[in-house]
Amino acid sequence: VTDPAAAEDAAVLTERISQGDRSALARLLSLVERGGDTARDALAALGPCPALAHVVGITGAPGAGKSTLTGALVGVLRAAGTEVAVLAVDPSSPFTGGAILGDRIRMQVHEDDPGVFVRSMAARNHPGGLARATPQAVRVLEHAGFDPVVVETVGVGQSEVAIAAAADTTVVVVNPGWGDAVQATKAGLLEVGDIFVVNKGDRPGAAEAVRELESVLGGSARRSSWRPPVLTTVATDARGVDELAAALAAHHAHLRASGELAKRRELRVRSELRGMVLEQLAARASALGEGPRFDSLVAQVAAGSLDPYTAARDLLETDR
Amino acid sequence: VTDPAAAEDAAVLTERISQGDRSALARLLSLVERGGDTARDALAALGPCPALAHVVGITGAPGAGKSTLTGALVGVLRAAGTEVAVLAVDPSSPFTGGAILGDRIRMQVHEDDPGVFVRSMAARNHPGGLARATPQAVRVLEHAGFDPVVVETVGVGQSEVAIAAAADTTVVVVNPGWGDAVQATKAGLLEVGDIFVVNKGDRPGAAEAVRELESVLGGSARRSSWRPPVLTTVATDARGVDELAAALAAHHAHLRASGELAKRRELRVRSELRGMVLEQLAARASALGEGPRFDSLVAQVAAGSLDPYTAARDLLETDR
Repeated sequence: VTDPAAAEDAAVLTERISQGDRSALARLLSLVERGGDTARDALAALGPCPALAHVVGITGAPGAGKSTLTGALVGVLRAAGTEVAVLAVDPSSPFTGGAILGDRIRMQVHEDDPGVFVRSMAARNHPGGLARATPQAVRVLEHAGFDPVVVETVGVGQSEVAIAAAADTTVVVVNPGWGDAVQATKAGLLEVGDIFVVNKGDRPGAAEAVRELESVLGGSARRSSWRPPVLTTVATDARGVDELAAALAAHHAHLRASGELAKRRELRVRSELRGMVLEQLAARASALGEGPRFDSLVAQVAAGSLDPYTAARDLLETDR
Repeated sequence: VTDPAAAEDAAVLTERISQGDRSALARLLSLVERGGDTARDALAALGPCPALAHVVGITGAPGAGKSTLTGALVGVLRAAGTEVAVLAVDPSSPFTGGAILGDRIRMQVHEDDPGVFVRSMAARNHPGGLARATPQAVRVLEHAGFDPVVVETVGVGQSEVAIAAAADTTVVVVNPGWGDAVQATKAGLLEVGDIFVVNKGDRPGAAEAVRELESVLGGSARRSSWRPPVLTTVATDARGVDELAAALAAHHAHLRASGELAKRRELRVRSELRGMVLEQLAARASALGEGPRFDSLVAQVAAGSLDPYTAARDLLETDR
């Protein structure tokens, strides 16, 4: 069921992407978002990818200032000469297109810079599809040569954990006053954070929020030898963002030195592959449950001339 | 992945069942409940089945007296010389084993009669599995020569609709006072009922409940030319149960004459086959997502020597 035209198209896109064509990159990401055979062909055309970019996840409650912080971070990283891609993912609802657009506008300061690529992804009707599409979009961006790839996502429910699983380093953004450790624990953010940032650090209570977080983090049993730093930023003035960039580099170095990077990436590939297999088999189940062949087998079973097990086996064995 | 021993065992069971061996029948139903390859082999050994029995679903809110009514109905049907099987299905929770046991005890009056077979099925940890197992258990009971097969189920949420889809004739049991038409409509019971029974009909409000139901049923748009009768019973004294048996026979005759029986059965086979295909593909997805072959592909993708799409295709194409 591979569409040769789509595969060829994907090969052309891949070629254009390798030549630095940004519109081809945007087009390929749209195919990835859409899912199904088209996405599969497009991504297969990319070929193997050693996944060498540093993938940074930035998460936190709505309004914490993630987008502004991401914009400021991109500025610092660009000043150091790296090519940065940003994937702004909103898993919350199909109705937040406006917020995503807002994120994009805030990123427009870098619009003329070919060393920055910003992309929004909405959940549409497929929260599960988003979890699938995110690691695949990261793969495309890595393949296009961006390093780091920053994935920004609203921390709601399970999604931030899923996104954290797709990142090498996860940055959790909180605000003064938000900084109730109990709240952070409830939201499951303490477990996924490699770096904590108290943004809007010029507001009252910032120092208390840092102390609270450090106290809770010190008390929690962590699997790794990495002790998550708690930084203070004022993203609107880019204050403290150099320190965030330095912490990201330090964590990346720690991941490499400890062998943790390879472990995280293997786990990521593991869940990505499982998701792909499940998606394809579910599509096959839908396809098998309709059409003339299915109708004919149903009629035979209903008439009593065929048992349903043989019919099911028949469907599964022939239509491949 | 067929276990030859299990298939042989299933063939032996099938042979013993055809000789009227009730313990073999109970054993086969356990295999069906368990699901997976064992169930598939066991049921494939049964061979094609023209599904000739009248399948009667009895549903209603907890405490409506379904089990007592079923017991009384079995008495009437046995007096007419038919062999009856009862499947008591509890889709509500894994913790209601006691209630199921209670149903069984209330049926014990017929324990010595070889013309009655009673079986309980619990949801365990698989509400979806119950929906799968029920039509398959009905198939086994039909095959063993029981006619009618009565499926009794607690009406909770979606389950009564699923059970109604597995029955030729659905009986909805209500009580006086319960008889608020709005409540019945909310519960989705008006749509699935072919026959309505106001049980505990010696209690105050029984006549009003009948009138209310008849009024709502008369007003609702029904797809079929069958006008559902509203009967009154006192199951504890077997009062009105002869009329219920007559209504069941009348509805069965209507289904045959109108061609509706064949349509319902085809729809039933359709959803049964789809469920079987989905179950097998889901099992395959689980099996593909683990083991040395999966580990090896994960390692290759993580190392960047293989793309994940080729890896997924590889998994799907080889392990069949």
